[in-house]
Order: sequence, then C-alpha cells, then structure tokens
Amino acid sequence: MIILHHLRIGRSVFTAWLIEELGLEYEAKIYVRNEMGRAPPELKGAHPLGKSPVIEHDGMTLAESGAIATYLIDLFDAENTLAPPRSDVKARAVWNQWLAYSEASAFAPFLFKLLLSREQQPHPPVISAFASGEVALQLGYIRDQLGDRPFILGDRFQAPDVGLTYILSMARRLNELDGHPTLGAYLDRNLARPAFQRAFARTGG
Amino acid sequence: MIILHHLRIGRSVFTAWLIEELGLEYEAKIYVRNEMGRAPPELKGAHPLGKSPVIEHDGMTLAESGAIATYLIDLFDAENTLAPPRSDVKARAVWNQWLAYSEASAFAPFLFKLLLSREQQPHPPVISAFASGEVALQLGYIRDQLGDRPFILGDRFQAPDVGLTYILSMARRLNELDGHPTLGAYLDRNLARPAFQRAFARTGG
Repeated sequence: MIILHHLRIGRSVFTAWLIEELGLEYEAKIYVRNEMGRAPPELKGAHPLGKSPVIEHDGMTLAESGAIATYLIDLFDAENTLAPPRSDVKARAVWNQWLAYSEASAFAPFLFKLLLSREQQPHPPVISAFASGEVALQLGYIRDQLGDRPFILGDRFQAPDVGLTYILSMARRLNELDGHPTLGAYLDRNLARPAFQRAFARTGG
Repeated sequence: MIILHHLRIGRSVFTAWLIEELGLEYEAKIYVRNEMGRAPPELKGAHPLGKSPVIEHDGMTLAESGAIATYLIDLFDAENTLAPPRSDVKARAVWNQWLAYSEASAFAPFLFKLLLSREQQPHPPVISAFASGEVALQLGYIRDQLGDRPFILGDRFQAPDVGLTYILSMARRLNELDGHPTLGAYLDRNLARPAFQRAFARTGG
C-alpha cells in the first residue's frame, strides 16, 4: 500500500493524480496549513523538510515529486503508459528533462511571483525584474514546445504533463496565462482528466 | 563526442565535473556573461531557454542538470560508480531523490538569498523571511543526512554529490556555511577531487 502525505492545498494533489493515473491503491494522510499558510509541524514526522508530497511504500519514505513519479513508474507502469521504456535511452532522456523541468528551471520564477504578490511594500526591483523576465521566458518555452500538440511530448499524456499542470496552475492563479490561449487549453485538458478529478475529490486539492 | 555549452560562471562547471568523473571526452563551448551578469543571446542558439548546462550528444540536445547526469550515467557508467544499478529500484529511488533535490527543493531559497543580496533597498519582509527560514531548513536537512559520512549517500561519491556541491558553493558565497563545519568540510572534499579540478581548469568555472 502507498501512503501519500498530502498537505492541503499544494503540490501533492499532483502526486495523487499520478497515482490515480496508474490505477493504484493509496491512503492519503491529510495535513492542513495554518492561518499563515505554513505546513503544520506534524508533517515533519513524515519527512524532515516538513513538506509534501512524501510517500511511504514498502518500508521506504521518498520525497521530491519527480523522484516519486519515477519510482512509481518503474514499479507499476509495466506497459509504459506514462513514460517511454527504459530501453529507449534518448526518449527517456527527453522525458526526464521535462519531468525535471517543472521542479527545476520552471519553479523558482513562479514562486518569486507568488511571494511578491504577498508583499505589502513596493516591489524590490532586482527580484521583480528577474521574476517577470523569467516567467515570460518559461511560458514562451512551454508554449513553443507544446505547439499544437495535445500533450507536452506529443499525442499521449505522460508524467511530465503532471508537473507542467502544477506550474501552469500557478501561472493562472497569478494571471500570467491571459496571453497564452494554447497553454490555458492545455491546462484545462489536463485538469479535466478523470484521474485528476478523482485525486482532487480524494485529497481536497 | 559530447558538446557542453558552458556559461561562465555558473552551474555548468558541475556538468563538466560529472563528465570528467566519467572519464569522457567532451568539447566545451564557452559563453561569458555580460556586465549585468546575464547570459549572452548566442546561448539561445544552443537551447531556447538560453541557459546552461546544455549538452549535445548523438544528435540530441538536452537541458536540466539532473536529466543530463542521468542520461550520461545510463550510457557511460556501466560499472555503476556514480549511481546504483537500475535493477536496485529502491536504492535508485533514493539516489534520484537526492539528484532532484539540489535542483528542486534546495535551489529556490538560495536563489532568493542571492537576489536579495543585490537589492539596494530594504529587504521585502515576506521574501526575506521565506528565504532565511528555508535556507536554514535546507542546510539542516543536508547536514543531518550527511552526518559523519564522507558523501551524501555514504562512503562513495555519487552523482547527487555534484548537485549538492553547487548548492553548498552558493551557501558559502552567501556566508551561510559558518555554523556548519561538516558541510564546509564536505564541500572542500568535493571541490578537491581531481575531476572537479580538471573541469574548473578546462571551463574557467
């Protein structure tokens, strides 16, 4: 049995979604943020960083969304629905690049924007310029890669679409998707998947 | 032949180091930042994000440090010196978690600190509090995982040590390592490796 430590509301609904796409059983342990938006201290009992997603499976505790996705796919995606087969080293490398991307290059600029939106004072010029430039750059990159394809790697939904949905959800909340109709449509397409809907209903988002 | 697009000074010296640890031939194409610290536009010819590291190999272009590391190890580390064998799914998952960590959870707080240090004006309270709290949290996490072992996963140097060296180099530059002697010693141990020294001499850092 997989245990998913889930902090509402946040990134781990996307891990629940991946688990639902794989059709696996899991138990969601749900934690709720305090009035400051911080995770409760009990989450540190699951993992020293006190964040989520974290999974427990077969005696192991694992953090980092991409590592969790890779582990679950290695174990349970025997038919290669969410990733190319390991034997196709190049396809797997591109897949891995896009899996890493939403946590690596893409994430920090959107986090900056989110925190900037919470500042009362005038915005710090260095950080504001960095965040605006990077958000535009990253959204253009995703838009160009997507083109007119339904999913980021082509016709088929795969694990990197999960992480990109997280990034684009942040972008929409920050009103950064208005000039990107193809990204908005892609986000809607992903959020409408039955597995996402089940994950959302199960975890509360 | 591997081509490494290398922006001086930055993260890609760590990819050069990984290539040196694997004993591979490579050509380093070197780009220099402008007086504002930004990458030159020519780097966009290598990859649309205009960042580095980016590698070209066998007709493929690949970005994201962790994805590049995994690709090179899949192809060239037949003796499993820098990663556990793929057949050991659990050990590989933990390795993957630590490989992802230095680009995912760990990176943004240090980037915030770096940009904050460049602001002329008084620091924005939300971002400053976030960055300070997160930097302390991440350094404590790495320190506890390291314990008194020589490398992050035990007795043997592996690929996740490369990314952590990048994070701890940033931490040292930001004067955040003073209270962490074991992390300072770990950083020095990694930077003293002949493969890092060769990469530094070859790329200019």
